Amino acid sequence: MALSTEFTELLGVRHPIVLAPMGGSAGGALAAAVSRAGGLGLLGGAYGDRAWLERELPIVAGTDQPWGVGFLTWAVDVGAVEQALEFHPAAVMLSFGDPSPFVDRIRRSDAVLIVQVTDLDEAKQAVDVGADVIVAQGTESGGHGARRGRSTLPFVPLLVDLAAPVPVLAAGGIADGRGVAAALVLGAAGALIGTRFQATAEALVDPSISKAILEGRGQDTERNSVLDIARGASWPTEKYTARTLAHPYLDRWRGREAELASDSQARQDYQDDVARGVIPPLPVWAGEGVDLITDLPSAADLVTTLAAQAEDALTWAGRRRPNNRPRAHG
Amino acid sequence: MALSTEFTELLGVRHPIVLAPMGGSAGGALAAAVSRAGGLGLLGGAYGDRAWLERELPIVAGTDQPWGVGFLTWAVDVGAVEQALEFHPAAVMLSFGDPSPFVDRIRRSDAVLIVQVTDLDEAKQAVDVGADVIVAQGTESGGHGARRGRSTLPFVPLLVDLAAPVPVLAAGGIADGRGVAAALVLGAAGALIGTRFQATAEALVDPSISKAILEGRGQDTERNSVLDIARGASWPTEKYTARTLAHPYLDRWRGREAELASDSQARQDYQDDVARGVIPPLPVWAGEGVDLITDLPSAADLVTTLAAQAEDALTWAGRRRPNNRPRAHG
Repeated sequence: MALSTEFTELLGVRHPIVLAPMGGSAGGALAAAVSRAGGLGLLGGAYGDRAWLERELPIVAGTDQPWGVGFLTWAVDVGAVEQALEFHPAAVMLSFGDPSPFVDRIRRSDAVLIVQVTDLDEAKQAVDVGADVIVAQGTESGGHGARRGRSTLPFVPLLVDLAAPVPVLAAGGIADGRGVAAALVLGAAGALIGTRFQATAEALVDPSISKAILEGRGQDTERNSVLDIARGASWPTEKYTARTLAHPYLDRWRGREAELASDSQARQDYQDDVARGVIPPLPVWAGEGVDLITDLPSAADLVTTLAAQAEDALTWAGRRRPNNRPRAHG
Repeated sequence: MALSTEFTELLGVRHPIVLAPMGGSAGGALAAAVSRAGGLGLLGGAYGDRAWLERELPIVAGTDQPWGVGFLTWAVDVGAVEQALEFHPAAVMLSFGDPSPFVDRIRRSDAVLIVQVTDLDEAKQAVDVGADVIVAQGTESGGHGARRGRSTLPFVPLLVDLAAPVPVLAAGGIADGRGVAAALVLGAAGALIGTRFQATAEALVDPSISKAILEGRGQDTERNSVLDIARGASWPTEKYTARTLAHPYLDRWRGREAELASDSQARQDYQDDVARGVIPPLPVWAGEGVDLITDLPSAADLVTTLAAQAEDALTWAGRRRPNNRPRAHG
């Protein structure tokens, strides 16, 4: 029995599993692999860097399955969105900020508009602008999200009720098929998954990042703006933090963000430490579900495993599993 | 189809639904009503107040269904546990602190030992002392919990894997049957539910509390130690905070906890404000799922509704629900 939801029907995909458009690491090869395996691969368009898009868009567009692209709403310009639309994505996802300036342009294409939200006000706005799909992002998620976020489990059903009949995807803390199944019983039409896909063969990450994720523990992840400030990122840190694994600069500057922001020498030290290889080139963005990630499969195998685990979890929840019946494993 | 799990079999209850032993508000009538309806009612024994137990224990013990009692491990003495055991509870739950001093006494009774944990270290300790059931409490939960907690959705599957074959209950953010279903697909053998039961006819709460819960929003809940300090509670605030709804003293003292702790006049002002009715007698402890609570049913109706909603969610997740088929409602 395949899992069928409003989302799988709307997008014409086999599994209710979506690759989060992680800036930089969700490149064309990863997005294409997820889509070929029956999920929806979303290219991590992030700030809309034209050269990166020019390189990665043709790769993902080479698949004959539906795929999409995601952008940071506060950072991107319409030109980058138009660059992506030339490749006929099945979906465009907008995260973090007012989607209004992009809605008309996306609506004139055939792409499904996906809007990611972190609270009820953003959810109402997404409904008002006519989002076709809404992503409810919980604070468990790796990487960027609301400074004062909601937890996935109670947030998703609330959003499902608010957005109906618009389908909702759950995001944040989902790293295995049990999490996918949880998204579905909470009323979501699918799960958007980030960190778990960083530990796949196709992710555009340094091997040190995959290794850190395989070894990382959820209790060592922390939402912070220290690393955005230290590396001079342009994120609006008053609204958004990012969940990362432990980092020397985080320990050094936790609670002194304003001081760090005005300390140009500290930011220079950060760059020097990166150059000298003392700290990794980028923070390791990771969600609270990172403990559940213990292998480095191909993205295709991962999608297949997630779907099988989710079906298994739904089949056996609330029923006594015969002792000789194994759980689904990858 | 009733929901059957390792927990329902172990306790001999009909539904995998457990009343959280909320100190004071989970009295004998509420616990008895939950047990009679097929869940497991846990009396909120809290600090082990003998007079309170003497009044409430006979009420819950009057039911012919399995029931239990919960205590705060850091606060209670063995005498209070023995007082409860004289009434032959089916289960004793210990939360927050080292359960070791109580294990032998509980093991000598017929009661199932339930230990609530908030991180992996506590979970390992619970397994080591021989807990029969482990509660994985997420930071979404109302009332007290770990200062640096884990979120329910990613925490539960992690704990299920760690504790197996010991059954796990999920707690935190569960306020309707979709949340119960999510607990089950995550691998839990049931859901422990607090805040939702505060808004029932039998809860031992002031009507102002039920009203605040019906009107409360998850985004207005906040984990804090301000209110414990202000009211002079003996909670070890370095380890535990409590999630409450908004409160004037929280706005006034947020971020200045040490100052408040050393300001005896401020704590006196708090008592005076309670006496004058300016602030409620107790903080309103509420979890992030509070938005989902919109009615004030009997506890029996609530248990029945939660079970029906959970079965409905499990039946239809990942399948296309016919348009004319309504969702289960209370």
